[in-house]
Amino acid sequence: MLKTGILGATGMVGQRFIQLLEDHPWFKIEALAASKRSAGKPYKEAAKWHLDVAIPDSLSGVVVEQIDPKIIDEFDLDFVFSAVPSDIARQVEPQFAEKVPVFSNTATHRMDDDVPLVIPEVNSEHLDLVNVQKKRRSWKGFIITNPNCSAIGLTVPLKPLYTEFGINSVEVTTMQALSGAGYAGVPSMAIVDNVIPFISNEEQKMEIEPLKILGRFKGDGVEFADFSIFASCNRVGVLDGHTESIFVKLNREFEIAEVKEVLNDFTGDPQRLKLPSAPEKPIIVMDEVDRPQPRLDRNKGGGMTVSVGRLNRKGRLLRFLTLSHNTIRGAAGASILNAELAYKKGLMG
Amino acid sequence: MLKTGILGATGMVGQRFIQLLEDHPWFKIEALAASKRSAGKPYKEAAKWHLDVAIPDSLSGVVVEQIDPKIIDEFDLDFVFSAVPSDIARQVEPQFAEKVPVFSNTATHRMDDDVPLVIPEVNSEHLDLVNVQKKRRSWKGFIITNPNCSAIGLTVPLKPLYTEFGINSVEVTTMQALSGAGYAGVPSMAIVDNVIPFISNEEQKMEIEPLKILGRFKGDGVEFADFSIFASCNRVGVLDGHTESIFVKLNREFEIAEVKEVLNDFTGDPQRLKLPSAPEKPIIVMDEVDRPQPRLDRNKGGGMTVSVGRLNRKGRLLRFLTLSHNTIRGAAGASILNAELAYKKGLMG
Amino acid sequence: MLKTGILGATGMVGQRFIQLLEDHPWFKIEALAASKRSAGKPYKEAAKWHLDVAIPDSLSGVVVEQIDPKIIDEFDLDFVFSAVPSDIARQVEPQFAEKVPVFSNTATHRMDDDVPLVIPEVNSEHLDLVNVQKKRRSWKGFIITNPNCSAIGLTVPLKPLYTEFGINSVEVTTMQALSGAGYAGVPSMAIVDNVIPFISNEEQKMEIEPLKILGRFKGDGVEFADFSIFASCNRVGVLDGHTESIFVKLNREFEIAEVKEVLNDFTGDPQRLKLPSAPEKPIIVMDEVDRPQPRLDRNKGGGMTVSVGRLNRKGRLLRFLTLSHNTIRGAAGASILNAELAYKKGLMG
Amino acid sequence: MLKTGILGATGMVGQRFIQLLEDHPWFKIEALAASKRSAGKPYKEAAKWHLDVAIPDSLSGVVVEQIDPKIIDEFDLDFVFSAVPSDIARQVEPQFAEKVPVFSNTATHRMDDDVPLVIPEVNSEHLDLVNVQKKRRSWKGFIITNPNCSAIGLTVPLKPLYTEFGINSVEVTTMQALSGAGYAGVPSMAIVDNVIPFISNEEQKMEIEPLKILGRFKGDGVEFADFSIFASCNRVGVLDGHTESIFVKLNREFEIAEVKEVLNDFTGDPQRLKLPSAPEKPIIVMDEVDRPQPRLDRNKGGGMTVSVGRLNRKGRLLRFLTLSHNTIRGAAGASILNAELAYKKGLMG
Repeated sequence: MLKTGILGATGMVGQRFIQLLEDHPWFKIEALAASKRSAGKPYKEAAKWHLDVAIPDSLSGVVVEQIDPKIIDEFDLDFVFSAVPSDIARQVEPQFAEKVPVFSNTATHRMDDDVPLVIPEVNSEHLDLVNVQKKRRSWKGFIITNPNCSAIGLTVPLKPLYTEFGINSVEVTTMQALSGAGYAGVPSMAIVDNVIPFISNEEQKMEIEPLKILGRFKGDGVEFADFSIFASCNRVGVLDGHTESIFVKLNREFEIAEVKEVLNDFTGDPQRLKLPSAPEKPIIVMDEVDRPQPRLDRNKGGGMTVSVGRLNRKGRLLRFLTLSHNTIRGAAGASILNAELAYKKGLMG
Repeated sequence: MLKTGILGATGMVGQRFIQLLEDHPWFKIEALAASKRSAGKPYKEAAKWHLDVAIPDSLSGVVVEQIDPKIIDEFDLDFVFSAVPSDIARQVEPQFAEKVPVFSNTATHRMDDDVPLVIPEVNSEHLDLVNVQKKRRSWKGFIITNPNCSAIGLTVPLKPLYTEFGINSVEVTTMQALSGAGYAGVPSMAIVDNVIPFISNEEQKMEIEPLKILGRFKGDGVEFADFSIFASCNRVGVLDGHTESIFVKLNREFEIAEVKEVLNDFTGDPQRLKLPSAPEKPIIVMDEVDRPQPRLDRNKGGGMTVSVGRLNRKGRLLRFLTLSHNTIRGAAGASILNAELAYKKGLMG
Repeated sequence: MLKTGILGATGMVGQRFIQLLEDHPWFKIEALAASKRSAGKPYKEAAKWHLDVAIPDSLSGVVVEQIDPKIIDEFDLDFVFSAVPSDIARQVEPQFAEKVPVFSNTATHRMDDDVPLVIPEVNSEHLDLVNVQKKRRSWKGFIITNPNCSAIGLTVPLKPLYTEFGINSVEVTTMQALSGAGYAGVPSMAIVDNVIPFISNEEQKMEIEPLKILGRFKGDGVEFADFSIFASCNRVGVLDGHTESIFVKLNREFEIAEVKEVLNDFTGDPQRLKLPSAPEKPIIVMDEVDRPQPRLDRNKGGGMTVSVGRLNRKGRLLRFLTLSHNTIRGAAGASILNAELAYKKGLMG
Repeated sequence: MLKTGILGATGMVGQRFIQLLEDHPWFKIEALAASKRSAGKPYKEAAKWHLDVAIPDSLSGVVVEQIDPKIIDEFDLDFVFSAVPSDIARQVEPQFAEKVPVFSNTATHRMDDDVPLVIPEVNSEHLDLVNVQKKRRSWKGFIITNPNCSAIGLTVPLKPLYTEFGINSVEVTTMQALSGAGYAGVPSMAIVDNVIPFISNEEQKMEIEPLKILGRFKGDGVEFADFSIFASCNRVGVLDGHTESIFVKLNREFEIAEVKEVLNDFTGDPQRLKLPSAPEKPIIVMDEVDRPQPRLDRNKGGGMTVSVGRLNRKGRLLRFLTLSHNTIRGAAGASILNAELAYKKGLMG
């Protein structure tokens, strides 16, 4: 068992890390770290736990550490997961990466030239960027990042479309869940009987991250995919699960049946390698006229499957809807799957 | 004062007719008609009133009539408003139109060649189709329709864009309010902590109605506008107010500032004629980064103003968001404004 | 394995029966029965499935039967669960009970002199009423009922208080979940940004059922408990989980610590007999100042544990809050636990 | 016109002060004051405005002042309204009261011996306490307070019951609105699909404040009413409007019809004096089986009427439900009505 620590353990994504790793066959949580405000308290007091399953007994009373690289030695950590705010990540993730692998859910380093931005089913080959990174930065560890939560729900289905049909352009409108903003991110007074048509920096991430992920790995860097994405991001009163309405202009003629088959058949390294957190199917195409829906479909594949529905076309313009669990497939689960892939590929030392 | 009757008086749109006409300077409600189930009961018992203002005292105890053209003579009606279901409309609207003008909020006759589908600020000249209609059908009255609720929020801002820049294509994703489905249309079990990505027949209406409204009136018919619309319609847990995320490819280069000016300056016959229900401005462009929002902006202009925000562009592709009150600007208010325009234009006899 | 059928299989409670019995060690669903409207369709089409776990594969395609006692022979059923509306229950439950045991979640027969109204932890001895019942009605089977959903959340904690301290009177105010009204029971237009302070017949049930359950079994009938209950029932916008604010005047002096101990230590036949659906603890007392909460606590003990919190006292007046899952502990799970108890007690033949 | 300032102008209650005073016949807002963080900004930027009517044009651009008694001279204020947090109130309200009357919505001074705690319809005679207060404290001004929002919805109907029947004891369970916690007080993650059965210090206020308000004024102080109140306070997902389920044991026999008449006929000084913010009726008894409801009834009487319904009895125990607008009748409107009463009684100099 590899020993891991969670940086940002008290937040919404931190809580999902704890839930998802409870019975993990390869990784064991040894340290929970958070901000100064939480440090020194038992976890159950430090975290505003919001999941409907209880805090694992083994972690409930664990004293939260302050985020500091000295916990690596103190707890003999093999690697860490990071779900800290961007400004903190800028400072601490490199400090940890000097010594151990860091699997980061934070935006800070995603677009760095030598940092892999990975969805294991989509671009597992990008993991090799860590060799460039380690060499350039003289680190024993490295940083591997996963995309923004809404970028994942978009990129997973774009991958087979990009491969099979080519993509000219994408317009996407999101209806995103509250948990994406953190526990206190969206006041109830702001969202009851309402929609908030703005999420800070979200559109920028959605418009660039998929192009890196779908880009070509060229040994020392990534050549970005060359289509354009235009995003409109909205917050709705849903606890978990991002819904995205997507219009994609493809590069060649197609039939809906063909698209469905391509999406349904999509599979990747996590499935082939039978990684512990890999869903049986990365994408499920639903034929019901009114699906997917966040409350009913977000937990498919343990929250790791992207549900697709409402496919329709006009000429080369394809319309569909995706639904993905934003704090599992879009955050904690994404980081864990990256770590599993890195482990299986022998990158974890 | 012209005497009017409300067909479908107990439903969500019927209730808005009653609210909006309470102190109308030209029109007075003389008859409330509804289905057999409601007929014979006092209005306050027949209707599941859902507005946070009380039923007008003058109508609260009025006995509901069954929908039947004989109420025209019985109550000496000059015209009627119709908010009945489509199948009922097919049968009764022509029966009423034989004798008096019918201002219909129902889809049934919207696409008929000789029936005007009108938003007064957009295509008031289409009203003249009633002459063709009356002649062809040998009716003393006529049917004038207003568009589907979500089509209105789309078409109003498209009009100045179409005129000024030309439109190549439109992709629109809606986040629509619950009231659009009628009082019992969306069970709470279906929408709490959820989004429903389907509204029956809604996308079809949104994709064709604006093309008729923006079409050219040619004496005996309308030549439809020639661009394409692709819609994705979703229901969210909002009581009133449809939000629409719109991507429009324009026919020429533009700057955002230019688009804002064109939208903000837009005005039409209702403003020039100072119709009683006309908002001061049909469109208000909001500069706040997180507006418009349904709960905060749906009542602008008495619910008759379309709020626009979040303008951005990539090349000739313009993105923006609209918010309009679906049962006022998108239904009852739309019909009333049509009736006011028809009255002012001398079509009401 | 005993073979069972679900009467009312498509409704909210019916769906919970299916979910809870999926891997049951003693009972196997052989027949799904529902109204004429559903009969003949595959289950997945007949039911508006609302749970976030999928329909079990083994039942998804099963053709729904019409509710008719002939399915007993056709499917060789040993007993049935009933979750049909009251008026249907009046007709069909006796027809089934002529031949096989019926475990009913319906109000119809709950107050019949010879019908046990049972919560296994509270009054398992009442089961013996079935002997009176079978004899009097000359049935091969019998009817055993479980209480109304909100009565359960009240009665479970009242039991140890009644035994230990004696009860003078009870005032209870509920905040009940939407699922209790059935899938289409509460329109979203009625409950968004609202509370509905009325549930038809609910207060009457809450005020009498606990008195029968807590009554003394006297061989041929039940002598009701002799205190008074006054209830105020309200619907709030929660999917599952009834919250109840309870004031109980006890018959003797007490300390809060004493009450907590009595509640926490409460246990019954299901725990002693290790019935498959029995929670480890029927009651969990929470010390957190803001618990229990429906979303966080409704699934405790697989939805079978009643969470209690916010205990306080003034003189002999005790105040506390309970939270119980209304479609598991309060409906399907309650019936199943009754069946398990009856089976273990040898009543199932 | 008297010139007034709002202390705490940017918060939820501050916004209501601004809305309610927009066209006030006697009072004019001259100064908006808030915390250091807001001071110096135009009001529209400093406040997170949440009402669905716009900020009055005359105040939208006004620069917010820091809360400091020097604004009294600077803006020539005749008196101030205070809606600041309790800790701030402790410091600043006496500083202001040295010079001018302060109408406070804050808990800090409510229970002071010489501070009137007033609901004008209930205990207008308590206003005379200001004479004691001014003398004892050597102030030119004074502090008059209004009760906690949920205490008001309870006390208004208790008054006529207390007068007519006498009260033995009260048990009350609240379902309180989100706005009572301030804009960011309740995270959406905490309340969607949930109830929170705890509001800090709320029960303590509800259990004591009504006893002072219903107490007897004895020249130099108030003799509290002598019954007991036991409260259970809960937060539900409603924007505005506190619902309270109340059980009152009365001191003599009664019929429901008698209680309804006593409540419906209740009136007080504000009605007799025709104060500008007084509702026509302080209490409206609703006969509909499912009313009052927050969304439908909170705006009755401009938000100043308390709606009562669901009356029932068992012996001398009366049950009913009240609904009152927590930020109008329960906060800003309450303070304004107090100021109107004080003005009319000649206390404002």
